[in-house]
Amino acid sequence: MTTRTAPVHYLEDLHVGQRFISETHIIDVEQIKAFARQFDPQPFHLDEAAARNTLFGGLAASGWHTAAITMRLLAKGGLPVAGGIIGAGGEIAWPNPTRPGDVLHVESEVISVTPSRSRPDRGTAVMRCITKNQKNETLQELTANLIVPRRS
Amino acid sequence: MTTRTAPVHYLEDLHVGQRFISETHIIDVEQIKAFARQFDPQPFHLDEAAARNTLFGGLAASGWHTAAITMRLLAKGGLPVAGGIIGAGGEIAWPNPTRPGDVLHVESEVISVTPSRSRPDRGTAVMRCITKNQKNETLQELTANLIVPRRS
Repeated sequence: MTTRTAPVHYLEDLHVGQRFISETHIIDVEQIKAFARQFDPQPFHLDEAAARNTLFGGLAASGWHTAAITMRLLAKGGLPVAGGIIGAGGEIAWPNPTRPGDVLHVESEVISVTPSRSRPDRGTAVMRCITKNQKNETLQELTANLIVPRRS
Repeated sequence: MTTRTAPVHYLEDLHVGQRFISETHIIDVEQIKAFARQFDPQPFHLDEAAARNTLFGGLAASGWHTAAITMRLLAKGGLPVAGGIIGAGGEIAWPNPTRPGDVLHVESEVISVTPSRSRPDRGTAVMRCITKNQKNETLQELTANLIVPRRS
């Protein structure tokens, strides 16, 4: 059921309940601050002391940083889909903050597989991708609608 | 109705239909490739020639890059919410790819405002944040659930 180093999967190769597990990524203070400086310059992502008096109670990664690392883990073999990982959108939630020192991995599961009615060369797969840390805490829940090619 | 350089807004200051418009951000090839190398290393985000034979038909930014730039524009005054922009999650869609040379801005609208029942110091605001380019094409639709403090 669980595949770590799988060949690429076309739409026909995917089935509901199929699971994939990514490699891991360790996030540190410097990564958190570098991403925040560029994309999310708010005190709780930039400064340990300032973060203490916020809702986060300490330095936390931007949710978009968690999303970007998740994408990296999926692209680097965590979700071996033919043609690459092309998302049309989805739902995202961050139940717990990502902290310095967290070791992230992504557990993905196929939720649905739907061939396109108008385009015989592709279809849609809905994937639930859960990003967890080393304590098994869920940092991000992403339900993504992916465009997946069929075998030609 | 539309505010460009507003003071920060507490929950009581927000009302359904209220709008905010961000400044702009110009995205170029180097930004697209740098983000992709770090977070989304797929051919259609890294290489113009390889991108031509994909669904994108040319170099396109990672959707997560569009999301990150959107966050930057919101944090840099595009969404002047008290206590910072703290999202619990939401829905995201990318109807059109972000291309080199696109000039992005974000138009946000308050969809709902709900005081917390259990915590008198805060509430939730649902914001719809549409990221557009200079041709008025919608690059990203984000419906975000934000945690917003009340005036103490």
